[in-house]
Amino acid sequence: MSTDPLLEELAAIVGDARIAIAPDLNLDELHDEALGVVPGSPRCVVHPTTTEEVRGIVRTCALRGVAVVARGSGTGLSGGATALDGCVLVAFSRMNAVLEIDTNNHTATVQPGVTLRELATALEGTGLHYPIHPGELSGSIGGNVSTNAGGMRAVRDGVTRHHILGLEVVLADGSSLRTGGKVTKSATGYDLTQLIVGSQGTLALVTEITLKLSVAPRHAATLLAPFADLASITDAIPQLIETGLDPAILEYLDLLTMASITAAAELDLGIPDDISARALAYLVVVLEDTDEGRVASDVEAMGNALESRGAMDIFLLPPSAGARLIEARERAFYVAKANGATDIIDIVVPRAAISEFLSRVAAIASERGAFVAGCGHAGDGNVHLSVFETDDAARHELLTALFKTGISLGGQISGEHGIGTAKLAAYEELTDPTRLDLERRIKEIFDPHSVFNPHLSPRRRPTS
Amino acid sequence: MSTDPLLEELAAIVGDARIAIAPDLNLDELHDEALGVVPGSPRCVVHPTTTEEVRGIVRTCALRGVAVVARGSGTGLSGGATALDGCVLVAFSRMNAVLEIDTNNHTATVQPGVTLRELATALEGTGLHYPIHPGELSGSIGGNVSTNAGGMRAVRDGVTRHHILGLEVVLADGSSLRTGGKVTKSATGYDLTQLIVGSQGTLALVTEITLKLSVAPRHAATLLAPFADLASITDAIPQLIETGLDPAILEYLDLLTMASITAAAELDLGIPDDISARALAYLVVVLEDTDEGRVASDVEAMGNALESRGAMDIFLLPPSAGARLIEARERAFYVAKANGATDIIDIVVPRAAISEFLSRVAAIASERGAFVAGCGHAGDGNVHLSVFETDDAARHELLTALFKTGISLGGQISGEHGIGTAKLAAYEELTDPTRLDLERRIKEIFDPHSVFNPHLSPRRRPTS
Repeated sequence: MSTDPLLEELAAIVGDARIAIAPDLNLDELHDEALGVVPGSPRCVVHPTTTEEVRGIVRTCALRGVAVVARGSGTGLSGGATALDGCVLVAFSRMNAVLEIDTNNHTATVQPGVTLRELATALEGTGLHYPIHPGELSGSIGGNVSTNAGGMRAVRDGVTRHHILGLEVVLADGSSLRTGGKVTKSATGYDLTQLIVGSQGTLALVTEITLKLSVAPRHAATLLAPFADLASITDAIPQLIETGLDPAILEYLDLLTMASITAAAELDLGIPDDISARALAYLVVVLEDTDEGRVASDVEAMGNALESRGAMDIFLLPPSAGARLIEARERAFYVAKANGATDIIDIVVPRAAISEFLSRVAAIASERGAFVAGCGHAGDGNVHLSVFETDDAARHELLTALFKTGISLGGQISGEHGIGTAKLAAYEELTDPTRLDLERRIKEIFDPHSVFNPHLSPRRRPTS
Repeated sequence: MSTDPLLEELAAIVGDARIAIAPDLNLDELHDEALGVVPGSPRCVVHPTTTEEVRGIVRTCALRGVAVVARGSGTGLSGGATALDGCVLVAFSRMNAVLEIDTNNHTATVQPGVTLRELATALEGTGLHYPIHPGELSGSIGGNVSTNAGGMRAVRDGVTRHHILGLEVVLADGSSLRTGGKVTKSATGYDLTQLIVGSQGTLALVTEITLKLSVAPRHAATLLAPFADLASITDAIPQLIETGLDPAILEYLDLLTMASITAAAELDLGIPDDISARALAYLVVVLEDTDEGRVASDVEAMGNALESRGAMDIFLLPPSAGARLIEARERAFYVAKANGATDIIDIVVPRAAISEFLSRVAAIASERGAFVAGCGHAGDGNVHLSVFETDDAARHELLTALFKTGISLGGQISGEHGIGTAKLAAYEELTDPTRLDLERRIKEIFDPHSVFNPHLSPRRRPTS
């Protein structure tokens, strides 16, 4: 298909049908969902189907000094899977076999291109589920591993890293390595699995993933509680958790987010006007159990706890409305995007600091005449903010101020989206240089010639 | 106290009262509980109380090229905290302040010398607990972090690494670094916290730990179920978990272990002779809830599940007997030691492979005329074996055969004790060289002159 030796070698590895070059590129494959990140022009896009093919691609690219950018299904929000000029973009979408569902060990082993929806389908009828739910079912497991994806259920079920038991990866020299396995504990050497999870494809390409499964809850209920203000919600969280009712979701929405997502989803939750006129924030609580009667009595107990902690009212949503509200919340990003948001960020702070953080956010925004709205995971401190500021310099300054505020309260720049390209400059600027230096050196061990996602690693500062 | 410049410098940092040299050493501080590991003679033992003192000690030792061995409370089982000839042994026992219990964020921040018992005491009355229970309450949190300690509750509550949110560490150049914080999720850079957890003090000295706390269950029940054989127990585990009853403990004991620990604890569980004559294995199930009525109905449901899975009978132990049985199980190591065990190992395999593993273990032992008995965590595949073989060469060969068997079934050498010095040679021999090389290079980044616990890292092989 070409006289370019690199392309010929890659075509020999994956076959002509699974390599694409301009002008025949699928432009949707060159970027993720991060706002404002402009993709470069890759040398080609390849679609491997086996680990052997990935090894061949990496070996070829490494020998020729060509950058490799890894891509799952492009649902990321940080510009991590964005094509670089001249890179080989390795798209994992056809490496999407569910290799094994092990109902004895309660594990699943999958290729990285398997989406959360495909995994859920494969688990139907087993009584098991993969509890991590970053909100976008078309997201790939490989992408979830790369960013250590979280989601609304983190308060109870943790995040991706807590469910990854083992990996097969391809290293920068084209060799492959297995880490972990079908064991839920290990004290055998450094935990390379955990180092690779969340490393955004900068250390190795993940070619196989062994996940820990959980028993699927059979019954659920969704409560919606309007509060006078957000501080009342965050103040209530410790007591709601101390009930021992173990909510799967504790999600807050500010007034504007509630109004916009329910309007976009054409969802009428039946909240009386006198309450919606006074409520400035909403808490969504999801309770689950394998036993239906327990869910009912948990709803009762949680309702009492919410009432005693200042909820203006408590609505037990009919199952369909509950599911639609959670779905609408998951679409909040798309609503914000449609409304012209310039950035979506997901600073995480200690959860008791959410209301303090948000009042500082409001002050920062109003000082600058900017506009910031949001919702987030009240149970785990992960605050999703939609930022509306079109002037580039002002945006940069605003975002930096928001990140600094989160960090000053004991938080971090991203709870679940990752740093990607969108926040790399801020990460470099706001992070302890000792830490950045360790990260750079870990990157160099795994990938001495910076072949893997070179645009996602903190740059080495010029030596003086 | 000395004219040795190193000792003078260290005494200036910690004060004369907190540095000890031979012959005034507390010999108990020179070793852990690993069998057969002989400690060397340290240059001195120092007892820092602050991070600043640890920084000073590390700086001094690094400048002089003296090895630093870190020690918690010496309850380890792998020879990780064993003095090296000529080392400075840094004992963290006086760095044991509980710095903060944060009841809003449900975290505790402690110095590394705090023991599990001290933490439990500090949490009394808060309704919260730290759920990891490696079985020895005098173990230090710092030691738990170093080995990624597990314990009987791992089937439900995970292991140490799942509860470590943040660390303060001292690096090999004497600088300090904070990782993580009071946040339960993060997608911000490589997860250095998780890399350091389980690294056995080879990468950095941990000086402060932020732990995630859970809601303490208020009610518990212990069931004991005799089975005809161990295979019936391991076959039953998936279904017992799929009940959704979420047992906190699923522990098996073989006949010999059951007999020896109950005898040692003078514990009569009231099992009729006709059953104890036929039962070759026992399963202990602990159920917990914040609600007493639910525990009672869970006991009923679990009893039914056990019965349908082949339990010969089901005994609901009176609370005191249940607690004493768990305690007796935790003392199994000491009973085995008193009975002359030469090694205690804790291979982890996929839990469905436990019975296959143990039948191979029995065959290996009988071929060699050796004797191996055990108990373990049926819920997570972590098998604790007491090995009785006094001939050194035969022991080495036997242990290697056991490790190889575990690995061939998808397992790892240690589930929770760590590799330490006791299993380092086997680890080097049986591990993928690519992985060993990555570990060596990670060690070199953090500790280029191999100051920290140099006896615990895989050696660099001679270059050819």
